[in-house]
Amino acid sequence: MKALSTLAIVATVAFSASANAQFAKPEDAIKYRKNALFVMQQHFARVGAMVAGKAPFDAKAAAENAAVAEYMSKLPWAGFGPGTDVGDTKAKPEIWKERARFDDLAQKAQTELGKLAAAAKTGNLDAIKPAFQAAGNSCKACHDDFRAK
Amino acid sequence: MKALSTLAIVATVAFSASANAQFAKPEDAIKYRKNALFVMQQHFARVGAMVAGKAPFDAKAAAENAAVAEYMSKLPWAGFGPGTDVGDTKAKPEIWKERARFDDLAQKAQTELGKLAAAAKTGNLDAIKPAFQAAGNSCKACHDDFRAK
Repeated sequence: MKALSTLAIVATVAFSASANAQFAKPEDAIKYRKNALFVMQQHFARVGAMVAGKAPFDAKAAAENAAVAEYMSKLPWAGFGPGTDVGDTKAKPEIWKERARFDDLAQKAQTELGKLAAAAKTGNLDAIKPAFQAAGNSCKACHDDFRAK
Repeated sequence: MKALSTLAIVATVAFSASANAQFAKPEDAIKYRKNALFVMQQHFARVGAMVAGKAPFDAKAAAENAAVAEYMSKLPWAGFGPGTDVGDTKAKPEIWKERARFDDLAQKAQTELGKLAAAAKTGNLDAIKPAFQAAGNSCKACHDDFRAK
């Protein structure tokens, strides 16, 4: 148990240092994560419009948009390094206080968007619907706890 | 020649209608293209820092960042539909007046970023340097003509 905790701490520190090194300044990291999340959301919402019947179902477009949403879901997290808790952001300080829980939710969202992309590849709207719902829930779970209104 | 022009016009109209249908409002399209370009630029710049000797060369990081930059380079253009020439944007009206030339430059940037990603995969900095320069030039060519200062 102690070994595991130490390993986890080492991994977190290494990741943070690496993530921070990627951005010239904290504002860039904040802008980066917001921008990546917005691009993700736009593609996710296009699948959502089909799921809700607000747009005609287009299997090719659903698969393409779900694939982009999955790809984009891997990017934002590098922008949540230390020192990026203040500035033009709705990110709550809890992210840096409950990092493991935040990281779990971030990972869960990536997993669910991967499942949505796989479901969308089948071209079957009945498979897309529950996968979309699960992915949406994973976004909401993180927003509820870690994003200010 | 006439047939070709007509085809080109039909293709442009179809693309525009489709691109516009993707966004709830013009502001979303503008935000989308800016955000996708910023994410692209951040990854591209990380390769640039290695090329310029401002960051130590890390073959794996160079390949990863070049791959993300290439992927991101495919996204922004859908955000330049009709009606997105006004608002919070540095995009010049010339984009919509000289669309074919803009589209050519957008395609060129994607091609060059694809070549950079391929060069980065080799892990050879000497192959990455000229590919980075060419990709940077393709970004600049479009900014010079189509982006306000």
